[in-house]
Amino acid sequence: MQNLVLGIDVGGTNTKFGFVNRSGDVLAEGSCKTKGYPDFKDYLKHLVSNVEEVRSQLETHNLVGVGVGAPNGNYYRGTIEEAPNLEWKGTVYFTENLKQYFKDIPIILTNDANAAAIGEMTFGGAKGMKDFIVFTLGTGLGSGIVANGEVIYGSDGFAGEIGHTLVNVYGRTCGCGRKGCLETYVSATGIKRTVYKLLADYMCDSELRGVSFNDLSGHMITEASLRGDFIANQAFEYTGRVLGMKLADTVAHFSPEAIFLFGGLVNAGDHLLKPAKFHMEDNMLRNFKGKVKLLVSGLQNKNAAVLGASSLIWKELDKAKAT
Amino acid sequence: MQNLVLGIDVGGTNTKFGFVNRSGDVLAEGSCKTKGYPDFKDYLKHLVSNVEEVRSQLETHNLVGVGVGAPNGNYYRGTIEEAPNLEWKGTVYFTENLKQYFKDIPIILTNDANAAAIGEMTFGGAKGMKDFIVFTLGTGLGSGIVANGEVIYGSDGFAGEIGHTLVNVYGRTCGCGRKGCLETYVSATGIKRTVYKLLADYMCDSELRGVSFNDLSGHMITEASLRGDFIANQAFEYTGRVLGMKLADTVAHFSPEAIFLFGGLVNAGDHLLKPAKFHMEDNMLRNFKGKVKLLVSGLQNKNAAVLGASSLIWKELDKAKAT
Repeated sequence: MQNLVLGIDVGGTNTKFGFVNRSGDVLAEGSCKTKGYPDFKDYLKHLVSNVEEVRSQLETHNLVGVGVGAPNGNYYRGTIEEAPNLEWKGTVYFTENLKQYFKDIPIILTNDANAAAIGEMTFGGAKGMKDFIVFTLGTGLGSGIVANGEVIYGSDGFAGEIGHTLVNVYGRTCGCGRKGCLETYVSATGIKRTVYKLLADYMCDSELRGVSFNDLSGHMITEASLRGDFIANQAFEYTGRVLGMKLADTVAHFSPEAIFLFGGLVNAGDHLLKPAKFHMEDNMLRNFKGKVKLLVSGLQNKNAAVLGASSLIWKELDKAKAT
Repeated sequence: MQNLVLGIDVGGTNTKFGFVNRSGDVLAEGSCKTKGYPDFKDYLKHLVSNVEEVRSQLETHNLVGVGVGAPNGNYYRGTIEEAPNLEWKGTVYFTENLKQYFKDIPIILTNDANAAAIGEMTFGGAKGMKDFIVFTLGTGLGSGIVANGEVIYGSDGFAGEIGHTLVNVYGRTCGCGRKGCLETYVSATGIKRTVYKLLADYMCDSELRGVSFNDLSGHMITEASLRGDFIANQAFEYTGRVLGMKLADTVAHFSPEAIFLFGGLVNAGDHLLKPAKFHMEDNMLRNFKGKVKLLVSGLQNKNAAVLGASSLIWKELDKAKAT
């Protein structure tokens, strides 16, 4: 009988889930709405009924744990706390409530970027690495940090907020209430803002001139860049430069073996990676030059969120087996 | 028979050493020149003869290990690599050569800031903490980072170079060959530069106007500040501001329980700590506000370097005992 882990990825609009084996195959998957359930207990009932429906289609198996990735997820407490993009306010006791439905098996929750890092280590490009960092470029910028083979959660479980380190104290306003945070430049939203600034600065043609701010997506900018659009290319150049400069600081903290980039923007390939690499190298202390790999995530364009969430359990089980 | 560790602190001019017991008492200590021995093997012979002389005055004891703190020290390789302030060029195989004199006991080497961090955990203010950072403010700025109860050495042993993160890309030239590194502002040398800038910007009286750049020391600025000198106070205000802003970034990476400051400048007390705290809080992400303690090192004005070096061994022995 096969051992399976249920991986759950809680997003602002939808929740995705899947049943994953130790090899990283997603044997069955599904999704349900997150939005529209302001009472967390209603949401949980709705989620579990969707999960059970998908589960009933699986062959007989042994469910060994549930891993959950969620915005503002706290590993220590199993809670989601003050997540700006979710309808539940304050602190939600996620694992505690989920235990009613999944008794006697471990349930582990962390934020989505930490789940991505453990996913990278378990199923992606960081297999065997002990020191690396994953940046997830989505609506915002998430980061999951691994040092000495362990995720850094910090004293209160909220380490890895590199998206909220400072690029420019007089810079762009950020959703966090401050100014000039890295994610206001390096994220799908950040590059949108950069495109709009460039459309103001230059008068050249661009396929993006016909698109409103609300309609513009990271995907459209990526596609325009791949077609050679000047504004889109400049936007990636600028995004890569800001990212690369901050990566040099991050390297000075951790001296990682590799940094992985994940998310839709990464599909622009060298349009993003080339300037990021150049400016990372250019700004790094001599000790580190030429040593740190900047790579596309091994889970890019895979079911990364569900794989990452499930890997929370697989990693713990592997560790228990090793001792 | 008492167990003792030999702690060695290699400085650019002098090497200090001492024999330390598990309680952190330095039972005997000494020092010898580092400078003037361009051949590393000559230096080692000279060091060991000084150490043995001091050791001969001790009661019968059991030497259980040698811990070494050194600039650009590499924990993994036991080497000192490309240290700009030492006469030995390239890579020096420190522990390998020292083994000839101390057979069959562990010898551990790391850089001085990492040794300070382990010292803080073993004998100082970080006892029982799993996530904290020590900043040593000397000629430069060193940092030792502990996460999940372990020092972060990174993939090549050179993690913790927060002194070389970027404050201002167009800023002050740094010994590392770049511009605007944190240590060009926050260190004894950094505050000297700030004093000279302020002496140029303002025309008010200051006891520091009579001192040449070469003669000016961090100690003199600290003393002037404690006497209420306007320029010295402004210099500390500025130093604290720059430090506080960068600490907010460091907190976003690690979410530490506490940050410890060590070094002569810290004797200025609130002149440094107050602006540092204010600007750290002011620049931090909401999640972290009010949670991270900014503290004076528990080893401040003690024989911190020797205690830190010896703690490298005590920590390993404690770990071995625990398992």
